[in-house]
Amino acid sequence: MSLAARRRTRRELADGREIIYFDDHAAPPREAVDTRDLGERALAGELRRDALTGDWVAIAGHRLHRTFLPPKDECPLCPSGRGTVPSEIPESDYDVVVFENRFPSFSAHAEEGAGTAYGMFEHVPAHGRCEVVCFTSDHEASFASLPASRVRTVIEAWADRTSELGRQPGVEQVFCFENRGQEIGVTLHHPHGQIYAYPFVPSRTQSLLTEARRHHDRTGRLLGADILTAERRDGSRMVLEGRHWSAYVPYAARWPVEVHLAPHRDVPDLVALDGAERDELAEVYLDLLGRLDRYHPSPDGSPLRLPYIAAWQQAPVHVGRDVSRLHLQVMSVLRAPGKLKYLAGSESGVGGWVNDVPPERIAARLREVGG
Amino acid sequence: MSLAARRRTRRELADGREIIYFDDHAAPPREAVDTRDLGERALAGELRRDALTGDWVAIAGHRLHRTFLPPKDECPLCPSGRGTVPSEIPESDYDVVVFENRFPSFSAHAEEGAGTAYGMFEHVPAHGRCEVVCFTSDHEASFASLPASRVRTVIEAWADRTSELGRQPGVEQVFCFENRGQEIGVTLHHPHGQIYAYPFVPSRTQSLLTEARRHHDRTGRLLGADILTAERRDGSRMVLEGRHWSAYVPYAARWPVEVHLAPHRDVPDLVALDGAERDELAEVYLDLLGRLDRYHPSPDGSPLRLPYIAAWQQAPVHVGRDVSRLHLQVMSVLRAPGKLKYLAGSESGVGGWVNDVPPERIAARLREVGG
Repeated sequence: MSLAARRRTRRELADGREIIYFDDHAAPPREAVDTRDLGERALAGELRRDALTGDWVAIAGHRLHRTFLPPKDECPLCPSGRGTVPSEIPESDYDVVVFENRFPSFSAHAEEGAGTAYGMFEHVPAHGRCEVVCFTSDHEASFASLPASRVRTVIEAWADRTSELGRQPGVEQVFCFENRGQEIGVTLHHPHGQIYAYPFVPSRTQSLLTEARRHHDRTGRLLGADILTAERRDGSRMVLEGRHWSAYVPYAARWPVEVHLAPHRDVPDLVALDGAERDELAEVYLDLLGRLDRYHPSPDGSPLRLPYIAAWQQAPVHVGRDVSRLHLQVMSVLRAPGKLKYLAGSESGVGGWVNDVPPERIAARLREVGG
Repeated sequence: MSLAARRRTRRELADGREIIYFDDHAAPPREAVDTRDLGERALAGELRRDALTGDWVAIAGHRLHRTFLPPKDECPLCPSGRGTVPSEIPESDYDVVVFENRFPSFSAHAEEGAGTAYGMFEHVPAHGRCEVVCFTSDHEASFASLPASRVRTVIEAWADRTSELGRQPGVEQVFCFENRGQEIGVTLHHPHGQIYAYPFVPSRTQSLLTEARRHHDRTGRLLGADILTAERRDGSRMVLEGRHWSAYVPYAARWPVEVHLAPHRDVPDLVALDGAERDELAEVYLDLLGRLDRYHPSPDGSPLRLPYIAAWQQAPVHVGRDVSRLHLQVMSVLRAPGKLKYLAGSESGVGGWVNDVPPERIAARLREVGG
């Protein structure tokens, strides 16, 4: 399916939040009106600087009241008209839809005030944006069960949002991700991801950037490219190699299941991917997610649906674009059926990671469960 | 009770691991012999450098087989002779006991090889040490239920281990911590903590050090001291103030429940605390833990036993000792009874922390539930 066949429709929800439909097939015009009385739009809170580490922390008190594992007929991500209450999506069907989170950690509408810095206490409004990306109108589906043409539409949506959010004033980093599974804290079962537009470069992204800069200064090459070359040459942690993408378990994997997916060409972000790369990404990502769902043998033979975090590492908006290289990191806390890895004292207290599973063993299993 | 009344007895377990008894009352000599046939001592694995971030990650394959929530009569931390199988502690009773972890992430006995660095792949043996600290022989107790005299003995044990492990060749950081509660992944219910001696400065400790150095270069003062002064002056996040110690919720708290406990005097680590400071620490830490257990109203009125990570931030062994300042960080994932905070996409993917609870609200609650 060509790009031209896709349609993008921008609308507004009852409280003024933006909603954008990305249709991958012929569909009626997206004209439904949000008739809910949502009252005042929720504001984002504030960003506080942690003097001990220099990191920014978003303080978002209202999120305590966000929707938590609602019954299926009250799912806010299903199309309206299917459940007992109107949902966040006014239309009666959709392909892919993106809208501003009702309970945002970051928003153009944040608590007033220019921020203050007195002594150790520095804060600014939590400007930025939090968006929800619904991958399908089918409540029971999962990303891994989508057809490649739909994944292709999701990729278009991610690239669209990366481009558009990166042009908003004050946005420094656009982060597309999916949290999947109750084990990682997902509060809505409907297949969806999120996009955060941060008004700062988050600390882990900053660490990636620092090392990439150091490597580039020393060698003149991109760190991400050298890692990919080294992994493909070594082979012991490779999972799959396509024409434009390869997946491997990183040499120093932190999670009991972790895999990185990187393009063969040097690109800073999803926006820079060409059509052929996007087409193949849809295929190889589905391949990878299928392997992840087959990773742990399920005790009763039913599909396990591995909980995971899928995190797109993109170049920051304004800095380090010359040394950053796009890649996807997918990681799971599930060590074995019923056994989770926790980020306890060593990881959360001092940042000392311990992985009980050798990366080569993870890779061997991911190769073994290829479709 | 004076220090002189405490007794320290060093012994060896059947596989050569060290075990040290710290007795806080008159007790028979600790002479029991470990009669188990433990076979070969488990080796630690290797440390791999994550080229993307520069962090070291411990790869410890054998830990997958470690003891996981055993039945009470097989508890490896109870004294021997009480259960069906001999435990890790040969004696039939003890006050506080420290021994080398049977499944260590770091050990003087690590897999052979001097380490290699080729291309992107650099590793070294995971030298260092992992110790278990049993706070009491009473399986059903918790740290918060200990008498102050026992806590005082635990403090002696922490200081002893910090001093001794810091003198071992290659150790760069000694980290005393307690993980409490299944919600944070505790696999043994018996009240215990751990001590990790890392052969590197872990990444979060390094972040604290970098900011402390920056602040010192700019002001000539200790960052930790300036934060404590600012919190005591502001007052809105104070929890308790003693003669030698104060507890406050940090301005940019990351966790739904988080509290820091800091000495009034500038000290780099637990070893540097004087007798009066250690005496008061026992009292205020018990006070604080009592508040934490009363933090969330329990649905049925029974004590909730808040899950927590208690993490002692000490100066590294060889660097930054002139700018580091001892403090304890206690944090919990429990947002509300039955509701956890997860370190999902934003935190784990890019290091962007979101806290749904304003720090001032955490502090108000901790003041409210004072004993």
